[in-house]
Amino acid sequence: MRAVDIIMNKRAGKELSREEIAFLINGYVAGEIPDYQVSAWAMAVFFQGMTAKETACLTDVMLKSGECIDLSGISGPFVDKHSTGGVGDKTSLILAPIAAALGLKDPMMSGRALGHTGGTLDKLEAIPGYRTNLSVDEFRNILIKDGFAMTGQTKEIVPADRLLYALRDVSGTVESIPLITASILSKKAAEGADALVLDVKFGSGAFMKDPSDGEKLARSLVDTGEAMGKKITALLTDMNEPLGNTMGNFLEVEECFDSLEGKGPADLMEVTLELAARMAVLGGKAKNAKEGRSLCEEILASGKPRQLFLDNINSQSGNAEQFLKLRGTFRSEYAADIKAAKTGYISGIDAWTIGHAGVTLGVGRNRKEDPVSPTAGIVFHKKGGDAVKTGDKIMTVWAKDEASLNAALPRIESAVGYSDNAPPPRTLILKEIVSK
Amino acid sequence: MRAVDIIMNKRAGKELSREEIAFLINGYVAGEIPDYQVSAWAMAVFFQGMTAKETACLTDVMLKSGECIDLSGISGPFVDKHSTGGVGDKTSLILAPIAAALGLKDPMMSGRALGHTGGTLDKLEAIPGYRTNLSVDEFRNILIKDGFAMTGQTKEIVPADRLLYALRDVSGTVESIPLITASILSKKAAEGADALVLDVKFGSGAFMKDPSDGEKLARSLVDTGEAMGKKITALLTDMNEPLGNTMGNFLEVEECFDSLEGKGPADLMEVTLELAARMAVLGGKAKNAKEGRSLCEEILASGKPRQLFLDNINSQSGNAEQFLKLRGTFRSEYAADIKAAKTGYISGIDAWTIGHAGVTLGVGRNRKEDPVSPTAGIVFHKKGGDAVKTGDKIMTVWAKDEASLNAALPRIESAVGYSDNAPPPRTLILKEIVSK
Repeated sequence: MRAVDIIMNKRAGKELSREEIAFLINGYVAGEIPDYQVSAWAMAVFFQGMTAKETACLTDVMLKSGECIDLSGISGPFVDKHSTGGVGDKTSLILAPIAAALGLKDPMMSGRALGHTGGTLDKLEAIPGYRTNLSVDEFRNILIKDGFAMTGQTKEIVPADRLLYALRDVSGTVESIPLITASILSKKAAEGADALVLDVKFGSGAFMKDPSDGEKLARSLVDTGEAMGKKITALLTDMNEPLGNTMGNFLEVEECFDSLEGKGPADLMEVTLELAARMAVLGGKAKNAKEGRSLCEEILASGKPRQLFLDNINSQSGNAEQFLKLRGTFRSEYAADIKAAKTGYISGIDAWTIGHAGVTLGVGRNRKEDPVSPTAGIVFHKKGGDAVKTGDKIMTVWAKDEASLNAALPRIESAVGYSDNAPPPRTLILKEIVSK
Repeated sequence: MRAVDIIMNKRAGKELSREEIAFLINGYVAGEIPDYQVSAWAMAVFFQGMTAKETACLTDVMLKSGECIDLSGISGPFVDKHSTGGVGDKTSLILAPIAAALGLKDPMMSGRALGHTGGTLDKLEAIPGYRTNLSVDEFRNILIKDGFAMTGQTKEIVPADRLLYALRDVSGTVESIPLITASILSKKAAEGADALVLDVKFGSGAFMKDPSDGEKLARSLVDTGEAMGKKITALLTDMNEPLGNTMGNFLEVEECFDSLEGKGPADLMEVTLELAARMAVLGGKAKNAKEGRSLCEEILASGKPRQLFLDNINSQSGNAEQFLKLRGTFRSEYAADIKAAKTGYISGIDAWTIGHAGVTLGVGRNRKEDPVSPTAGIVFHKKGGDAVKTGDKIMTVWAKDEASLNAALPRIESAVGYSDNAPPPRTLILKEIVSK
């Protein structure tokens, strides 16, 4: 078997066999097949796609390239959520304690900010002391104790994905549905979830700009997940505007805690509760999404998720008391307001532009090795649909330093769209893609 | 400018600017842009193609990545031929002395065998002592003296092509019309030809299997060559069966010399004389192809090209006398005959199968660093259209060693097709693609 023949088979639109996929991926992980063959193959996959069978094979081969988290001896059900990534997309930090309060276990393995999208690990690490590099034993113990645990991907977990993702990022092959599918599901299978709710984003701040591409990705994820024996469902949600009223690492943790106290903004709560409802259903706690949502609203009102959130901070080496003290004050000193340029309505705040401005502010990063700032970010005082008068405060912006602030402000201002009349309300959740 | 954006622009089907192409190619040659980005880009080019403008830019950027052969002070016209490669494809060794005898100068820079196709340099080096690694001064002097000179590509000539071709070969991106176009024309421009006749092959033994793909390549080559200020024309010729009655390094040199003595097989002479006729026209020695062909037939009959061929052997450090002594005897000791399996007609001898068997025999190579044998090869006693009786000798085969002979024979036998009735005659030259 030769890598070049596998590349040419894919280039010609042929279905690769499990043996061919395993030869390529395992050879790559072993350092026997070079980057330049894998990147050419990935580009051929971008153009030719993969069948459902190939995608499932790829996912499985990637999963088996490393170790899985051992959840044996812990009682489930293990239910997790995964988002394809967005701006201000912080639902995980609200969902995990809700799921735990429902009696589910959420073994959450998350990623970091990259490009314009935020990362759960970076947000959690904005809490002083909070550790996301848990050992497997720590992860197990916290999962048992709090019902959820938050960790990063270790070197031993799906090494094929670490290598492949880094290569795709620099070779222009990120936006391939089968490759995204295998990347997500191999990691989610390795963390041990039995059931998975997917938040597939579309719009300017998502990887998939177009709802129809988002739906294709959702369908690929659901079908492949099902083929791997997972309970799985996906919501297709709008990411044209940042979700909620904040973007930033500590700012988003705060907003999640506010949400757990019943003070979450409407758009964030809508997406979060619909996702939570599906977690309840897949975890066997509710018969359908409607019942699941009522249950989640009740549990949220009980205050139990709020307490679990604080408990988890302490479990993961943070300090819940200190966190509560930092609320509302842990901000960079380099701040400025964005004011309305005209009177009328905000037609929208562009998520892509805000996400990229976030990199400049210090919220995100362009390269994996770049540090991020806990205290940089944006609070949105107004969002799409809101009426404004010239000079009204639309946002407050914090940057890691003066130069970054000055560089980001014009870009942030350009993200605001205006209209004379009230824009039509956005449909946040476009549809659900269920397994067949 | 970032390489990944250039890859994504091409992936999206956008026309790259000259600046983008130069950034990528020059960065690659300088070692600043890695293989894995260039291979992904090449795969995107395979799928999205390039406009005529992009192809011309790429060719020019590649040409300027290195040095050109300085032909100043030598009187032209400089006319060359280039073939896209085939099996038994040996016309260069007949054409160059014919062109020289017509008063043209043929500065021929050639390649080596790779995969199933033969290489002019390997054939010439089968002549004991013959050197193809000429210095620029040697090349100039031999060109002045003999009217043609045969050399390999030096490190200084089009380094972008050396790097890119090697990468395409292992990344499944060889068969891209704009990339093939830029590879061929950058080298041909660097060798200094003013006029170029292209032999674009189609069929099983060619890179382009389908005549319509061959025609697209021919059109791309002619248009790009014209944009670069070259006189250029292309013949689209059949490569479903090996050309002439031999495949092998010394065997093919011998057959060329036979042809220069008026004893060439009909198919080889037809293609050679039609190509020679175009060289005569582009070099200003004839008004049209018909007149050119008559002129070439006359000059061939004069014996002048035969003498120039022998002179060139001596000029390039070979020994013409020794060459004449080796004629008919310089063969490997590991030989076998292929006999007709049935009575009827040979419907064809598959060029692709013969080409690959040739690699096993020692005629060609799979990897650039492999050696080739001068004395391995095949003589075809019968070819497509010939009537045979069971047991008739169809081929004689020579291999570099016993094991290779045994490995290749079944494959060679499988290349022979039979039919009960005489197959229709092949059209060797399908059409001419002229500049617009």
